[in-house]
Amino acid sequence: MSQSNENTAGAAPLAGLTVLDLTHVLAGPYASMTLSDLGARVIKVERPGLGDDTRAFPPFKDGESAYFATINHGKESIALNLKDTSDRSVFEQLLSKSDILLENYRPGVMDRLGYGWDQLHAQHPHLIYGAVSGFGHTGPEALRPAYDMVVQARGGVMSITGERDREPVRVGASIGDIAAGMFLTQGVLAALIAREKTGLGQKIDIAMLDSQLALLEHAIAITSVTGDAPRPSGARHPSIAPFETFHAKDGLFVIAAGNDALFAQLCVTLNLPLAQDPRFSTNPERCKNARLLKRLIEAVTIDKPAEHWIELLTQAGIPTGPIQTVDQVMQDPQILARNMVVDVLDQSGSPAYVAAGNPIKMSALPDPSTRAPAPKLDEHRDHILRWLEKSS
Amino acid sequence: MSQSNENTAGAAPLAGLTVLDLTHVLAGPYASMTLSDLGARVIKVERPGLGDDTRAFPPFKDGESAYFATINHGKESIALNLKDTSDRSVFEQLLSKSDILLENYRPGVMDRLGYGWDQLHAQHPHLIYGAVSGFGHTGPEALRPAYDMVVQARGGVMSITGERDREPVRVGASIGDIAAGMFLTQGVLAALIAREKTGLGQKIDIAMLDSQLALLEHAIAITSVTGDAPRPSGARHPSIAPFETFHAKDGLFVIAAGNDALFAQLCVTLNLPLAQDPRFSTNPERCKNARLLKRLIEAVTIDKPAEHWIELLTQAGIPTGPIQTVDQVMQDPQILARNMVVDVLDQSGSPAYVAAGNPIKMSALPDPSTRAPAPKLDEHRDHILRWLEKSS
Repeated sequence: MSQSNENTAGAAPLAGLTVLDLTHVLAGPYASMTLSDLGARVIKVERPGLGDDTRAFPPFKDGESAYFATINHGKESIALNLKDTSDRSVFEQLLSKSDILLENYRPGVMDRLGYGWDQLHAQHPHLIYGAVSGFGHTGPEALRPAYDMVVQARGGVMSITGERDREPVRVGASIGDIAAGMFLTQGVLAALIAREKTGLGQKIDIAMLDSQLALLEHAIAITSVTGDAPRPSGARHPSIAPFETFHAKDGLFVIAAGNDALFAQLCVTLNLPLAQDPRFSTNPERCKNARLLKRLIEAVTIDKPAEHWIELLTQAGIPTGPIQTVDQVMQDPQILARNMVVDVLDQSGSPAYVAAGNPIKMSALPDPSTRAPAPKLDEHRDHILRWLEKSS
Repeated sequence: MSQSNENTAGAAPLAGLTVLDLTHVLAGPYASMTLSDLGARVIKVERPGLGDDTRAFPPFKDGESAYFATINHGKESIALNLKDTSDRSVFEQLLSKSDILLENYRPGVMDRLGYGWDQLHAQHPHLIYGAVSGFGHTGPEALRPAYDMVVQARGGVMSITGERDREPVRVGASIGDIAAGMFLTQGVLAALIAREKTGLGQKIDIAMLDSQLALLEHAIAITSVTGDAPRPSGARHPSIAPFETFHAKDGLFVIAAGNDALFAQLCVTLNLPLAQDPRFSTNPERCKNARLLKRLIEAVTIDKPAEHWIELLTQAGIPTGPIQTVDQVMQDPQILARNMVVDVLDQSGSPAYVAAGNPIKMSALPDPSTRAPAPKLDEHRDHILRWLEKSS
């Protein structure tokens, strides 16, 4: 209990703020994880019986979901049935003491429960209401259900990810959820800033589908100007060259020479007389001739191992690096030096899982190397009820 | 000029705040685009001569980069050589009038220019300093150069994206940059909240590599528990089934039945007697038997077009949808209803490009359907100099 953010004070930006978190699975819980990392206390309200769906997601360790544990660390849990009179009373007391409410129901569900934005804003004008849903709370298809995979597909990211002329692939990380969770976090933080001036909370309405479109940058620019949607381009960037994987003697590595000066330096370093060649002298020309350029570079790189080239190019100031598997990343000296792999403790205080650290490094924000346990379902009921009594 | 956020007042959370933006290419400019959408004035400081690298990135329209235009709309531009005495004087006046400084130089560059965090914090204690770099300002490899592709590869996302037993592919969107830009935005917003309490700015140090690790969620959980790093799984989620693409008569579509209740409903809707089958009755079992499950579902779906199944499953409440190309997404009725495709105007006020709208929909934040033009290099020099004189 003492490891939650209930009694934080001082340095963390969100110290003293309480998040009442009705969300489950990933987008919402990812947002409340970030708010917790920034110092907020998060009270997770789960449905009685099963709780958050991800409690049943593999992989498991000692019968508990590691997936759940690594996203929900340091949060408190209370199980409430929002159709039950007595539980509603608890929820309403929690609302009156919270700064931020997060929910990811389908649009309309909160209204039918009597907790829609209009009602809540009238009763709790300071409360910030953050909603994340598949398609948002407006528009003709607001009521459709969605998961990550649905918005990755419908939102265009899948259509530009994969190998040319093969079936599209999913982005291996759940960016359909995570991007939406990150925009929700931004909206909540912006609403806190606005509240300082106005005293009023506001509603934030994040759609997972909108969030996918917001990631597309160059693909939108290309489609807008040419009328043609880009296709997947495998391992290369569609608008920069050379900016892709290359074969070394022992496997693939990456070179990303993002401007003319870096390309000229690459040519010197690899002893390739291409910098003045009109086919390669500007980035637009290099993009047109990217396949040929890849072969010319590989004619040099194929003879020695990737590590040799990474070392040589790094010394010459050219962005390059290995393609690492997740276990390799988790042991990467730079990642470890940045405290980006943290231990999630169990109830006895021993490390039980590892999770991603907080990527938002701030000079006045503590950056601990452990996280309090994820809660068991309803674990903090008594504690939370006592807190409500004490402070009512 | 009047379309920039210089004179915004009132509703927008960041109205009245000034961002001095030294960043180029994507991560930093993406962050300052969001800050602009939230109401901040952004003054883009570019190097004389060429300006931001992306001014040379295709695609072009009338000789201007659409890539640059769709990320830098509504910003002001001044070209300054930070080694020139007279330009340094302008920069220092700008510093004294700004709330937030953003930079994406390699660590140490700002210190050598005399504008490192320690110096700036001593002279401008209220100033928030947001840095984004490839590997962060600490750790053994802080000085290595990076671009999106380098951190996608080294950070593990590529290793789980693509088809099993084929070469890894890049995520089609530049999430190496964009994720870092989004965490930078979160850090800046959190620092503004902290400044309300302390009056002091702080330094935010975002690494693109850290940001990639922070997206990996289930891959870290899997590696942590099993010791084995996940491999790419093509178009399916590694921990949920059915959650992937399926063949219909006319092509692929997506079904994402993320829990037992949805799977049971799917079985009823497709008339498949699998809900009680021990091979499929729980999500862990469905994951083990995902290939078989895909074939059994496709045995039904292969006979009719995707639209038929999307309609039928949607009516049954099952998350499903098409795989859209970027031109299709940009005409999606739900996307258009959400104002997620906006016009970037040219200097005469006519629509010149389309760009992604603001995904952060807030009840008290205006959501215009146009954006002011991206600046020409040094376009606002005179205006900015007059503003400095007037207010000094």
